[in-house]
Amino acid sequence: MRGKARIIRGLQSHGNGAVPKPGASRHHNGASHAFTMVERKAVYRAIFERRDVRRNFLPTAIPNRVLTRLLTAAHHAGSVGFMQPWDFVVIRDRSTKRAVKRLFDEANAGAAVRYTGSRANLYRSLKLEGIEEAPVNICVTCSRRRGGPHVLGRATVRETDLYSTCCAVQNLWLAARAEGIGVGWVSILDHEALKRVIGVPKSVTVLAYLCLGYVAGFEARPDLETAGWRKRIPVGRLIHYESWGNRAHDKRENGDAHHQGLHENRGRGKNQAGRRAAGLER
Amino acid sequence: MRGKARIIRGLQSHGNGAVPKPGASRHHNGASHAFTMVERKAVYRAIFERRDVRRNFLPTAIPNRVLTRLLTAAHHAGSVGFMQPWDFVVIRDRSTKRAVKRLFDEANAGAAVRYTGSRANLYRSLKLEGIEEAPVNICVTCSRRRGGPHVLGRATVRETDLYSTCCAVQNLWLAARAEGIGVGWVSILDHEALKRVIGVPKSVTVLAYLCLGYVAGFEARPDLETAGWRKRIPVGRLIHYESWGNRAHDKRENGDAHHQGLHENRGRGKNQAGRRAAGLER
Repeated sequence: MRGKARIIRGLQSHGNGAVPKPGASRHHNGASHAFTMVERKAVYRAIFERRDVRRNFLPTAIPNRVLTRLLTAAHHAGSVGFMQPWDFVVIRDRSTKRAVKRLFDEANAGAAVRYTGSRANLYRSLKLEGIEEAPVNICVTCSRRRGGPHVLGRATVRETDLYSTCCAVQNLWLAARAEGIGVGWVSILDHEALKRVIGVPKSVTVLAYLCLGYVAGFEARPDLETAGWRKRIPVGRLIHYESWGNRAHDKRENGDAHHQGLHENRGRGKNQAGRRAAGLER
Repeated sequence: MRGKARIIRGLQSHGNGAVPKPGASRHHNGASHAFTMVERKAVYRAIFERRDVRRNFLPTAIPNRVLTRLLTAAHHAGSVGFMQPWDFVVIRDRSTKRAVKRLFDEANAGAAVRYTGSRANLYRSLKLEGIEEAPVNICVTCSRRRGGPHVLGRATVRETDLYSTCCAVQNLWLAARAEGIGVGWVSILDHEALKRVIGVPKSVTVLAYLCLGYVAGFEARPDLETAGWRKRIPVGRLIHYESWGNRAHDKRENGDAHHQGLHENRGRGKNQAGRRAAGLER
């Protein structure tokens, strides 16, 4: 949280040379293409205040005009080879939502048995979807054969079409936050069964199932952080310079094994210590 | 383009009930959590003006403070089970960039032979990376084992950790646009070879290789659209209601086969006709 506050404050201090002023030529030979301070703050606000929303949905309908804005935002993600592999199935029908909720219940019962003891109790206490409460559900798909056999840029990494579709989801998510609309991504679903419910062809991949609605409020932190399920990793621990393992944050750390340890180290306050030591976040 | 302009205009017309006024109680029982009009426009501006940038990079250094803002934005993407599976390898060293550029050249030579005739000529004329021109390269990875064997929400769809990492990339991309920084995603790279160049452990997946820098300008449209490689699909053709195939846009269209046809239908103007007929985009 302090890192975010510092970033927003940083946007206001133009004296240090870090932020090119729009129209100033200090950093560029021509005009800067940076947004104004107010605009930049708004973009960061959307990014920092976006939440994975599973509760507090209001029954208020989302007007078509607003929904179209969100889907147009999604559609303006970049895509490998300009493939635009996504489609959006908009669901408002109660009986469809009920059928999807049943799929969630089945998948979630299977997932819950993977935890034991207090972790199992905590898992069962978490609200992980808002399928029926959200006025609108959207299934986002990826048509992997769109654009023919040779999609530009996809010869080496075939999954880039899925990656592009994720970028579209994030666009929608951020635009929704700006509109005051909460979005929850429900991943605990059998996608093949979901495809049968809403008629998605076998050849098309389901990427995301989203629940959307105006909300009574946005939480300040992710639900899983608040519930003590997992802590936020100080960003400095995730930044390597020139090659893997060369962190400004903490030279003693070594590779990914560390992060595993961090997650299993709840309550010993290393996150706080790490944050204090984080050169990058100062 | 007209769709986007309409959306921005739509944000200004508050009289139609489509956009909840911040603080107004018309749509909610309490205060609206929508951003102000200025803030919402800034978010849509970032989304619509973001480009996959491969040219026009300026040599201007990106200050650490600005780079940290971008990486903090990335780090605030949602992640399945709050897993935060991403790491960022920041590369400024010329010799490393040169080695990565060689990997691109090799992969691209292989990709180019997949096209024939005028398509091959067009392909070879495209600039598909800015590895050496961009002052900063960032390799974004996904540590698929972070968080232990049972990541919440990932039992049914194991790829959700990759999807979360893509959302982080999109956050970075949009924040960069607001900062006036262009970002290009280079997907034509052998990721295993890339891992050897920058020392990424075998167990960690490379998700994206990004080139960043302040730019002389942002293009109005995607390069591949301008080059005539592919057209933008009217968004209404990608929206289905309640179940797949039920489009408001054009009831005659049938399933995904259509989109294949659309892509192969260059020059016959169906995009324009489709846009005019698009009820949703009006």
